[in-house]
Amino acid sequence: MLCSSYYIVCPVQQAKFGATAIREVLEETGVKAEFQSLLSIRQQHKHPGAFGKSDMYIICRLKPVSYNINFCPQECLRCEWMDLKELAYTSHTTPITSRIAKLLLFGYKEGFPNIDLTMRTLPAVYSGLSYSLYHKELPASYETQG
Amino acid sequence: MLCSSYYIVCPVQQAKFGATAIREVLEETGVKAEFQSLLSIRQQHKHPGAFGKSDMYIICRLKPVSYNINFCPQECLRCEWMDLKELAYTSHTTPITSRIAKLLLFGYKEGFPNIDLTMRTLPAVYSGLSYSLYHKELPASYETQG
Repeated sequence: MLCSSYYIVCPVQQAKFGATAIREVLEETGVKAEFQSLLSIRQQHKHPGAFGKSDMYIICRLKPVSYNINFCPQECLRCEWMDLKELAYTSHTTPITSRIAKLLLFGYKEGFPNIDLTMRTLPAVYSGLSYSLYHKELPASYETQG
Repeated sequence: MLCSSYYIVCPVQQAKFGATAIREVLEETGVKAEFQSLLSIRQQHKHPGAFGKSDMYIICRLKPVSYNINFCPQECLRCEWMDLKELAYTSHTTPITSRIAKLLLFGYKEGFPNIDLTMRTLPAVYSGLSYSLYHKELPASYETQG
């Protein structure tokens, strides 16, 4: 099942993708969720209303920890849980929603490691800070001299 | 084998990730290459020298179509082809280089579909433009009603 706001994307400033997605889903739908993975990135240029800038849209997979919907009427017209397969194959949605629903259905049926990019925190050598790196899971055997 | 500039990341404005990576690799190393996939994204905040902005670093996998190095001395101190396994397990590199080299080694040994995010162009419904969507390859059986 998929909440209509599941892959809303949000302004990312000083927050990690996951934290931003969790906050926005909570604010817009009332559903509490946990970050699972990064799924997809959209890159778009010259989009109307983007102030002449290119934009990137980051799609995360979250796992709900509450299910009751209490949506924000200033930000959403309608919000409901939907059957994932129905959403994947309806003609009444956008190409991106359809495609991500199919990707989620593939993960749901055959295992989320097929579609997930997992996150790891690594040290930034010169600044002493850290950063988040997202990619397909690396098998443990490659972590050490193989 | 891996060229030292293989995953240099570049200012992305009106270009797709792949086109930008190809251009920068050519300018900095003299090596011509073709885009294969998106591999990883780094998200970093408060990094010194980033003008107070957060930054995203996009790592692409390219395939060389020429091999002679003719590097730009204004941008590179040194540039050479390296053995991928050696780069993956040397202690003389940064955590991100080490990790991406291991990821590439995994792909090289067990198949690049294990690590690649492929790109698809989809239509933007309201503007009539198109955009690029990157995610793990979706099996053909999920493309149609399954």
